[in-house]
Amino acid sequence: MSVFGRPAGGTFADGVSRTAYSDADVEGRRYVMTQMKAAGLEPRIDAAGNIFGRRDGTESGLAPILFGSHIDSVPGGGNFDGDLGSLSALGAVEALSAAGVRTRHPLEMVVWAHEESFAFGRGLACSRIVAGDFAPADLDDVWNGMKRADAIRKIGGNPERIADARRPKGSHHCYLELHIEQAGTLERAGVPVGVVEGIVAIDRYDATITGTANHAGTTPIAERHDAMLAAAHLTVAVREAVTRTPGRQVGTVGHIEVTPNSPNVIPGLVRLSVELRDLNPQTLVTMMDEIRARSREIASATGTTIDFKTMARAEPATAASDVQAAIERAAKALRLDSSRLPSGAGHDAQMMARLGPMGMIFVPSVGGVSHSPKELTHWQDCANGADVLLQTILEMDRL
Amino acid sequence: MSVFGRPAGGTFADGVSRTAYSDADVEGRRYVMTQMKAAGLEPRIDAAGNIFGRRDGTESGLAPILFGSHIDSVPGGGNFDGDLGSLSALGAVEALSAAGVRTRHPLEMVVWAHEESFAFGRGLACSRIVAGDFAPADLDDVWNGMKRADAIRKIGGNPERIADARRPKGSHHCYLELHIEQAGTLERAGVPVGVVEGIVAIDRYDATITGTANHAGTTPIAERHDAMLAAAHLTVAVREAVTRTPGRQVGTVGHIEVTPNSPNVIPGLVRLSVELRDLNPQTLVTMMDEIRARSREIASATGTTIDFKTMARAEPATAASDVQAAIERAAKALRLDSSRLPSGAGHDAQMMARLGPMGMIFVPSVGGVSHSPKELTHWQDCANGADVLLQTILEMDRL
Repeated sequence: MSVFGRPAGGTFADGVSRTAYSDADVEGRRYVMTQMKAAGLEPRIDAAGNIFGRRDGTESGLAPILFGSHIDSVPGGGNFDGDLGSLSALGAVEALSAAGVRTRHPLEMVVWAHEESFAFGRGLACSRIVAGDFAPADLDDVWNGMKRADAIRKIGGNPERIADARRPKGSHHCYLELHIEQAGTLERAGVPVGVVEGIVAIDRYDATITGTANHAGTTPIAERHDAMLAAAHLTVAVREAVTRTPGRQVGTVGHIEVTPNSPNVIPGLVRLSVELRDLNPQTLVTMMDEIRARSREIASATGTTIDFKTMARAEPATAASDVQAAIERAAKALRLDSSRLPSGAGHDAQMMARLGPMGMIFVPSVGGVSHSPKELTHWQDCANGADVLLQTILEMDRL
Repeated sequence: MSVFGRPAGGTFADGVSRTAYSDADVEGRRYVMTQMKAAGLEPRIDAAGNIFGRRDGTESGLAPILFGSHIDSVPGGGNFDGDLGSLSALGAVEALSAAGVRTRHPLEMVVWAHEESFAFGRGLACSRIVAGDFAPADLDDVWNGMKRADAIRKIGGNPERIADARRPKGSHHCYLELHIEQAGTLERAGVPVGVVEGIVAIDRYDATITGTANHAGTTPIAERHDAMLAAAHLTVAVREAVTRTPGRQVGTVGHIEVTPNSPNVIPGLVRLSVELRDLNPQTLVTMMDEIRARSREIASATGTTIDFKTMARAEPATAASDVQAAIERAAKALRLDSSRLPSGAGHDAQMMARLGPMGMIFVPSVGGVSHSPKELTHWQDCANGADVLLQTILEMDRL
């Protein structure tokens, strides 16, 4: 039993970017729903705009096995991020039906709406509503001339009944998601299947470095309070704090604003972002403690002040150990090597982890490239991933 | 014989910024010309808009002693930068007349037009025309809705005869300029008179650092090509190259542009400015050699490429040794301590150095603050500077 029998198709490999709420997004959703009907699933759009399709199980009173992904993309994105997991979910249902296999638990596939953070500057937006992380005022947000309520309406959701989209804890037996890795770890290791240990915690800070703007010609070096120099030392310190101990933790200075930002003026003010990610929130605290300690030394040495403000904090989402074990058994049954790894990117799975056991399957991204038209996962890896998803559904159905 | 007998006035200490070609600039120029007439000088505006006033000497065939400064300022500037030297030049002529002193050389005071680089993005603009550094096409430049030709016309110049403003080499016996230091060296040392050794050379480069923009969550540290990290190391390297050997050389990273400049994306491209200043152009070459060498190591260590483009190069202007000695004798005669120092900022004097011997007198700036409404030089220091200017005129008249 294999999800994809054919060596082409299976993803929207058409070069079209489907940003959430765009006409292309609406068209892609319509295509998925047509395919779901053809597979015998009656698509249902919840109040948030997520698409669900349910297939009954043989035992009553069991919570469904929920699985799926998203189809919206970033602008100029690729054709595998989200699409692979969504269409593999559909393919898994088709394969079970074709093989005449009934599961004990109900099966429920889902195509999440608005996963990428392009629209309205927030991501995991509609799985977040299902997890109950939503305020009614969010419906008034305006982005690109569109009110969020109208955006949700455009994809068939019902903003007036948005609270109905919320699902309670324990409403699924487990949640499974197949996704491309979006990094090069699996490809480099030559391992076809990644078993996600969890989705990393993210702490984001803004550092404000205050020095004194002054004449770049007349101010002797010893008299300078150069906020740019302090920012440079701080950027190096972030890298040093991140690499102090072995591990998969990362840290990035991605954004900087300099005032007055003129070649002949010593910068008096710099704001920069510090973003730290790891599966273990304690690692983030340890790294930030070191960055703060270094920043005090840097401020003293450069005659500046450095203040940090916490801008965002995302809790980690741990994959359930029995789901990780089920994925490993599934890969083994298919004679595919697997290895455990964290997800450095956010996924709808982290929202579903709030409601019940979660697990994710990663497949290799060529060159680690993602959010790019060059994003590529070889067909065999796509097919392997879909088969592991299917086998994991069957493994989890036994528990 | 003292230039300023009264403890107030003597500068435009009125809190008004006179940017070149503004109505306030025109009004200030009119005030100066009225004062010149009162002192018995017939003001003449050259084709570039500079104001000259000449007083004959006792010996025929001698070139004039030229002295003065400017009265235009930066937006939000102070009341001493330029004004002190211009009004002290006038005061020196008044003092000589009041004392009935005739000099051998003709005396020529000058108030340069358009010294600051705010208007038309270029500075020392009208002394530059006198030095012959001007292309007719420059008259077509447009800034702030104003054509450069019309701007020059507004202050009484004659753009049709702009070439007439040029003066030949040897047209002055020497050029003298009194100016505030715009730095804190003299104040900190408790020295009332600075003898400028010269105006520094300036080399300005743009560094382009190319890495790879990538996901800040999914890209392991070892796989990054982080242009921001390379920029940080380069900024530190600039400071290290500048401070490697003792001296007054300075170097500044004042401008940075980051792409895509988003907290959750590893920067793929950074452009930053590197500006180096020193009296000795060889020092600039040595510093830049070190910066280039370090940049190769940084590029290699960060997996980026770093390219430098030369954006601007200003030659140094050395003060003539006999003029420096004359200023020192003048200060000594007035029982004022003096010390030699370079000028890190540009001045009209550097244009006049192209035509003949040049010397500059600096007086202390409180806290080193300049280009700010807080710019201040204590009255006694203003009066000292004016007296040193007067005595230096007399010293140079003997040579």
